[in-house]
Amino acid sequence: MKKVKEVRWEILETKELFRADPRLVVTVQKIRLPDGRIVDDYYQVEYPEAVIIAAVTKDKKVVMSRQYQHGLGHVTTVLPAGTVPKGEDRLETAKRELLEEAGYESGDWSLLSQSSSHLNHRGSKVTIYLAKDAVKTAEPQSGDLEEMEIMLLSEEQILEAIKNNEIKSLGTVTGLVLAGLRLQEDK
Amino acid sequence: MKKVKEVRWEILETKELFRADPRLVVTVQKIRLPDGRIVDDYYQVEYPEAVIIAAVTKDKKVVMSRQYQHGLGHVTTVLPAGTVPKGEDRLETAKRELLEEAGYESGDWSLLSQSSSHLNHRGSKVTIYLAKDAVKTAEPQSGDLEEMEIMLLSEEQILEAIKNNEIKSLGTVTGLVLAGLRLQEDK
Repeated sequence: MKKVKEVRWEILETKELFRADPRLVVTVQKIRLPDGRIVDDYYQVEYPEAVIIAAVTKDKKVVMSRQYQHGLGHVTTVLPAGTVPKGEDRLETAKRELLEEAGYESGDWSLLSQSSSHLNHRGSKVTIYLAKDAVKTAEPQSGDLEEMEIMLLSEEQILEAIKNNEIKSLGTVTGLVLAGLRLQEDK
Repeated sequence: MKKVKEVRWEILETKELFRADPRLVVTVQKIRLPDGRIVDDYYQVEYPEAVIIAAVTKDKKVVMSRQYQHGLGHVTTVLPAGTVPKGEDRLETAKRELLEEAGYESGDWSLLSQSSSHLNHRGSKVTIYLAKDAVKTAEPQSGDLEEMEIMLLSEEQILEAIKNNEIKSLGTVTGLVLAGLRLQEDK
């Protein structure tokens, strides 16, 4: 089996096709592949970067939100999340979103992972944080378009919800798994 | 805590802004929220739908591919996946992709989940399948732009790879978790 080389594709040209600040930018790239082939039209769509927060209380319940998601077309259960405004540090965004969206705070934050929402077309850069020993300090006041219902779920309830497809967000499932693995490690 | 109503947002108008067939379509929607507020500019970017395949061999190894992902900008480990061409049944796409990309076939397919790659902006509709008792029947011949290295990973190796962020794809992590839960259930 041949080993994959740790190379990047070479971007020969990037042309902007559509922009709606600050929501999204569509570009098309001319690419040279490692084997020399040229691809003329590789599309990239960039959104503002996003944070997802896996906040866990002292008694090991995870703070989650039940809300409508328009990209999905129905209500689902997600981890608190938000987009990072220009000029704000992403950890600050995460702290703010957890407080505004869910009314929770934590003094123990750590990074779980960084990825992109779409592995071909880029999408949002996504950073997932773990917030341990989260405590409720306020009433939720998200100011978001979506109405939200905050709930605390145990590990058992979460596994059941994932299995039954009640958690549809790929980022939320990934955040929950990473948080579970990190908490096991910390024991 | 107020309960979230199981309503959809009402789409009052959809305007196409950019199209690059068959790769992507950008639209902007005028929306009426359940509380009556109007949102004038909710952007949607639609890609062709995608399938992700969690194929597991008789000895419980998962078929995975190490490959460059341009939306991420580096090499990572993913489940076999592909986009569904117009007119092809998505399960047929999944079977074809598993064979072409990895050289594996299975006689035992089942649906794990359906979601969207981006919960706000839509993105790709993503269907994840489980293929049990997968066997190698051919050499990989993906024809994709990316060079791939096919590997078989045990549950232990997968958990280690997720924990160490060697698996960056939110869809892949979700597929692995759903496959693991389904296999536990089937025992």
